Amino acid sequence: MLEQETFGLLGGDSRQAALAASLVQDGHSVFAWGLEGLPAAPGVQNASPEDVVTRASSILLPLPVSKDGRRLNAPFAAGGLPELDGAFWQSLRGKTVFGGQLSRVKTPCPAGLAAHDYAAREEFAVRNACLTAEGAVEIALRESERAIAGSACLVAGYGRIGRALAQLLRAMGARVTASARKPRDIAWIEANGCRAVQTSRVGSGEEPYDLVFNTIPAPVFTRTVLARLKTGCIVIDLASLPGGVDFSAAKDLGLKAVQALSLPGKTAPESAAEIIKQTVYTILEEEKR
Amino acid sequence: MLEQETFGLLGGDSRQAALAASLVQDGHSVFAWGLEGLPAAPGVQNASPEDVVTRASSILLPLPVSKDGRRLNAPFAAGGLPELDGAFWQSLRGKTVFGGQLSRVKTPCPAGLAAHDYAAREEFAVRNACLTAEGAVEIALRESERAIAGSACLVAGYGRIGRALAQLLRAMGARVTASARKPRDIAWIEANGCRAVQTSRVGSGEEPYDLVFNTIPAPVFTRTVLARLKTGCIVIDLASLPGGVDFSAAKDLGLKAVQALSLPGKTAPESAAEIIKQTVYTILEEEKR
Amino acid sequence: MLEQETFGLLGGDSRQAALAASLVQDGHSVFAWGLEGLPAAPGVQNASPEDVVTRASSILLPLPVSKDGRRLNAPFAAGGLPELDGAFWQSLRGKTVFGGQLSRVKTPCPAGLAAHDYAAREEFAVRNACLTAEGAVEIALRESERAIAGSACLVAGYGRIGRALAQLLRAMGARVTASARKPRDIAWIEANGCRAVQTSRVGSGEEPYDLVFNTIPAPVFTRTVLARLKTGCIVIDLASLPGGVDFSAAKDLGLKAVQALSLPGKTAPESAAEIIKQTVYTILEEEKR
Amino acid sequence: MLEQETFGLLGGDSRQAALAASLVQDGHSVFAWGLEGLPAAPGVQNASPEDVVTRASSILLPLPVSKDGRRLNAPFAAGGLPELDGAFWQSLRGKTVFGGQLSRVKTPCPAGLAAHDYAAREEFAVRNACLTAEGAVEIALRESERAIAGSACLVAGYGRIGRALAQLLRAMGARVTASARKPRDIAWIEANGCRAVQTSRVGSGEEPYDLVFNTIPAPVFTRTVLARLKTGCIVIDLASLPGGVDFSAAKDLGLKAVQALSLPGKTAPESAAEIIKQTVYTILEEEKR
Repeated sequence: MLEQETFGLLGGDSRQAALAASLVQDGHSVFAWGLEGLPAAPGVQNASPEDVVTRASSILLPLPVSKDGRRLNAPFAAGGLPELDGAFWQSLRGKTVFGGQLSRVKTPCPAGLAAHDYAAREEFAVRNACLTAEGAVEIALRESERAIAGSACLVAGYGRIGRALAQLLRAMGARVTASARKPRDIAWIEANGCRAVQTSRVGSGEEPYDLVFNTIPAPVFTRTVLARLKTGCIVIDLASLPGGVDFSAAKDLGLKAVQALSLPGKTAPESAAEIIKQTVYTILEEEKR
Repeated sequence: MLEQETFGLLGGDSRQAALAASLVQDGHSVFAWGLEGLPAAPGVQNASPEDVVTRASSILLPLPVSKDGRRLNAPFAAGGLPELDGAFWQSLRGKTVFGGQLSRVKTPCPAGLAAHDYAAREEFAVRNACLTAEGAVEIALRESERAIAGSACLVAGYGRIGRALAQLLRAMGARVTASARKPRDIAWIEANGCRAVQTSRVGSGEEPYDLVFNTIPAPVFTRTVLARLKTGCIVIDLASLPGGVDFSAAKDLGLKAVQALSLPGKTAPESAAEIIKQTVYTILEEEKR
Repeated sequence: MLEQETFGLLGGDSRQAALAASLVQDGHSVFAWGLEGLPAAPGVQNASPEDVVTRASSILLPLPVSKDGRRLNAPFAAGGLPELDGAFWQSLRGKTVFGGQLSRVKTPCPAGLAAHDYAAREEFAVRNACLTAEGAVEIALRESERAIAGSACLVAGYGRIGRALAQLLRAMGARVTASARKPRDIAWIEANGCRAVQTSRVGSGEEPYDLVFNTIPAPVFTRTVLARLKTGCIVIDLASLPGGVDFSAAKDLGLKAVQALSLPGKTAPESAAEIIKQTVYTILEEEKR
Repeated sequence: MLEQETFGLLGGDSRQAALAASLVQDGHSVFAWGLEGLPAAPGVQNASPEDVVTRASSILLPLPVSKDGRRLNAPFAAGGLPELDGAFWQSLRGKTVFGGQLSRVKTPCPAGLAAHDYAAREEFAVRNACLTAEGAVEIALRESERAIAGSACLVAGYGRIGRALAQLLRAMGARVTASARKPRDIAWIEANGCRAVQTSRVGSGEEPYDLVFNTIPAPVFTRTVLARLKTGCIVIDLASLPGGVDFSAAKDLGLKAVQALSLPGKTAPESAAEIIKQTVYTILEEEKR
């Protein structure tokens, strides 16, 4: 476990609030700004952005650090949103800074400043994929009138999320087909006990699917492909915007299609916070060596 | 597959409506009364109770057939609810009758009439337990801010539902403890890869649970036992009424407790209908031999 | 854990030797007769049958206690085998006696004597079934030139061993079909993710099997049924003698058929001893209450 | 399925013989040299090396193509072993050549010749890892007196084989710890339901292991590390020669250590042949496009 430390949190949503609470439970001092619209967590001390920065040695920015590339992502802040400009970054000089998807910011953090993108670490991405897969299952259970056990599912794409999701659905008793392009992924799909299909051939001749999950950020589920799906099939798009599903075509065809955004922050904020914390701890320990 | 048959459905909810639709898809003629408040299913012919009985050779009553023991369970019926009295049963003479939990009715179906309780068949109970387990997972995912993967779960009771639920949670990556009284169930719990605890000792010295599922229809989760659970633990009661959890004590203790009723009819009506249909088909085939 | 106790072991094979060693490791005093032909276990004191009985308060007889119904099962004894007659049982008066399959003995243990058949306890049977399933897998791996992952397996019979074996093979990546007669077992087979077939129809129209495991102690795999299996299929008979496979027909048909006897004592003697110990401990604790 | 083709096999062992048989079953013409010491497979035509090359359009060399880097790997050949020199490669000009681990050969195949190393393809490596994992389990079952279910296992290294093996052991009911160096592999280990340990810390403070599997081709299990393992622990080395276990130290310490070589060709030659065939087919189809 990490030694006692003072953390300052700026912005974020319920995931960031859960992160604050979890850091307090580990015995750290925690100052926060921007969570005013959420229930107060015991032990977290609210402060102005300036005070947060002054008092803390490690600054934790949210995931994503910004939605528009210019201002801090802080939907529950009481006041106006700080600009992520040169002055902002300068104010963090001397601190260890952590944020998620820092590359989204138009004025990048200057080279001299020690800013760590926890979301870019692969161990974070792996754990996040597992939580995302469970969030996708939650959506499927909510939307569907059928059980997952015994259903026929397609997982399009076999990256981290596709892999975690295919395994989870299979463990829950579904018959899972996963799609990929590369022979090596096809081999892993089969090694993991699923049926494999070439992504380019999805919907041509396999078993009719009850549930389709897309993880590919490219227009895979076009009108043509959607038209091959059976009536009553539910399509859940997990790919980041603009996604991979033609929602307008889905509507025309009478298919229920769901854009699943902000997973897992929305479905499991505590666990999502936990893996940010784990990654931040790992980076802090690596820094000390 | 069963030969073409004429089914008459009386009463029920969305599960019964899904049953009607599924029978039509299998090529049967289906007459129904009592589903007027639900979206019409293509191919299902609405009729008066008398017409339904006259035209059909097999009559399908809902699960449960009655909630108060006297009148048909038909919450979506346009008119008044038929009394399940001697005259009702006499009107079904000559038909093959199916219903769920027939023993709940105060005026029992007379001996001469061929009435089958599909819910009393063990193959139905097994399949229903699996769907119930998945419904319980849906509730847990909805209520919890944590992922099931990596969480510590307790399943109290190792009957059909307990067994199905423990397996499902474990497959989803939870650390599962299950409770039972008999040494043989303790042995099965361990053989299935879970930790075992005596039901009488629940909460004494095991790992703190994130999620507790009760399947025992007896006051197991008393104030004393609930007081041993950790803050933030969510308790889901799956036992039939009056259940096994002291909800008032849970409230006092600040624990989130949920009474999960009508599973799986509510969470997965189509699959729940499917297993009624399967059981009815099996019984009809056994009758013919 | 049980209080310090003095155990006396008579007869048995490497499983009984492993039991002696494990009891010593738990801190008990252990006297043994009949294991002279096996490597000596540290801490186990060899003695004459009379001395073993005199010194110990709990007497542990092997599983099975006798092979011919008349003499003790003691293949590694240096001297002649004790008769299990009235005098033998009388010599054990005042002791707590444990044995496996006591009902096989022609002169039964008199009513006044506290003899416990650990093998008749269901928790023992469950654990033994799991070990037997793993032993069956060991045999299959040894006999087959194909991997179990990706193979098509049949498990005939869905009792304890069938259930454990079907689960294990499925977990290892096989496509598993299991056979049963009762609708409720068919429901469990499907609930556990396997394909189900009526036992009376085995071999008619399913996928051709690579491996067939029989657990039914009745002539299921007759010449007619064996003739339906594909060339190269391996048949492993786990049913107790006389088994359920026509070995002579298998030979004529060019099928490799294996009679798997003495599982799990042969394949995993230490684990097999462990579950005897666990059961004996449970019984001793129940006695004290 | 591939169009009818003429294959020529040179050298190899029972895996190569199984490959020949499987190609015949798919309807291809097969000529072979070097399998004279093995049982003849129906439909495979034996020929001299020259004839094999003349008649076939695709030449299949074994895995590994050579053991000493100079001569063909052909332990069951009736005559002397062909040198893999310039003349040999020239004789294959105009053919599609396939071999396993071609880089082991001292005189490399000239650039103009279309030689494919099927063992270098990742889809082959994935499938081979799964078969190797099952072979490792076969060895563990054979060597151990304990069941895998309920045992504590360590898998050192989380490459393809480590991953497949950890999953398989876990599916069989073992408590599995896996070791890795990189944070991302640690994340995957935990995501896959196993405990993770840094490779550099193996044996320091974890649960005592019943079975240890090494997949790391480096001296990880030195005398110091081996001395930390518990008595009775079995160590299985899966790393290619010289392996990662100090066998002499293991012997001194009384640990059973096994060098598991030639997996899966030895434990599952038919499946091992099948994945060579699959890979060769994929390459031939890619060539045609």
